[in-house]
Amino acid sequence: MNLSSPSLEKLIAELAKLPGIGRKSAQRLAFYLLKQPQEEVENLARALIEVKQKTRTCSVCFNLTEGDPCPICRDEQRDRQTLCVVEEAHDIFAIEKLGQYRGLYHVLGGVLSPLDGVDPEHLHIRELVERCRQNVKEVIIATSPSAEGDVTALYLAKLLRPLGVKVTRIARGIPTGSDLEYVDEMTLLRALEGRSTLE
Amino acid sequence: MNLSSPSLEKLIAELAKLPGIGRKSAQRLAFYLLKQPQEEVENLARALIEVKQKTRTCSVCFNLTEGDPCPICRDEQRDRQTLCVVEEAHDIFAIEKLGQYRGLYHVLGGVLSPLDGVDPEHLHIRELVERCRQNVKEVIIATSPSAEGDVTALYLAKLLRPLGVKVTRIARGIPTGSDLEYVDEMTLLRALEGRSTLE
Repeated sequence: MNLSSPSLEKLIAELAKLPGIGRKSAQRLAFYLLKQPQEEVENLARALIEVKQKTRTCSVCFNLTEGDPCPICRDEQRDRQTLCVVEEAHDIFAIEKLGQYRGLYHVLGGVLSPLDGVDPEHLHIRELVERCRQNVKEVIIATSPSAEGDVTALYLAKLLRPLGVKVTRIARGIPTGSDLEYVDEMTLLRALEGRSTLE
Repeated sequence: MNLSSPSLEKLIAELAKLPGIGRKSAQRLAFYLLKQPQEEVENLARALIEVKQKTRTCSVCFNLTEGDPCPICRDEQRDRQTLCVVEEAHDIFAIEKLGQYRGLYHVLGGVLSPLDGVDPEHLHIRELVERCRQNVKEVIIATSPSAEGDVTALYLAKLLRPLGVKVTRIARGIPTGSDLEYVDEMTLLRALEGRSTLE
């Protein structure tokens, strides 16, 4: 399609590169942005540039942060004997939103997946072992409930238990609010296996 | 939620202002952008700024363009006796994509909607009348198939017919590939009313 404005065409092409945004959505966003005041659009452009300039990974837990170590690692109020292992930094935000967990985190940067060429040395596992040597009592593994997430959890458990660390895995089961009859077999199986006694 | 990076929080807030992008999608986009090379993110930021600086509306048809008049109005190959009236500039792109229409366009900038305070003087109707005084044979009204779109079409027809211009409206009916039983009543009614003879 030959748009009458190359700069508009360029913006649509750039927006369409984003995940989950197809050509149509990109077009809609571009036209919306064109209608916004100059200042609004500049705010977005500035936010894009600043996020790349300012955000780095925490040298302790590999969370995304502007200062190093990150505010969670610096927080003296938190339980330093518990680490929650997650795949990516955005998983931290999901858990922090609950406002319940008071321990620290460790971002792996992915999961073990030998078929995709992801071996232990590609993840922040060495650094996790290092942290576990320093007065860590429990490591909660919150990798995703997939085959790779499970393999990674088992691998870490084998590695960390000899250090005298308790290794736990977040529960799998029926999600709250879902209908039993629509839950897949694997989830139902895990829910049965993981049943707990009602006191 | 207290993110550990204010610049990331800012980007998420800016992205969440876009239509159809909620907080979750904004978060996903922001994390995606953080993982992209600096250059990619700068390209997007630059595209945002340039589109606002370079794109203006055509003084003839109110299409979005970088040069004035727009490439469609300047194109000597096009049929200058036919105008297609659309609500917004993005409608032009939808029609141009077909590659079938060879006339010119006229962007109204909306539809008549007295309840929302949109009266004829808020749309580019005066300019349309001006153009119709100059050797225009047919005006195809392609406003949306809504009550407001229909009212606008009727209003324009009344206004332009006295100038000796043929005023037509794009057809309404069953969309291609849809199932008759799932089509709403109004659409089906219009499809019946607009039936054509099979030769």
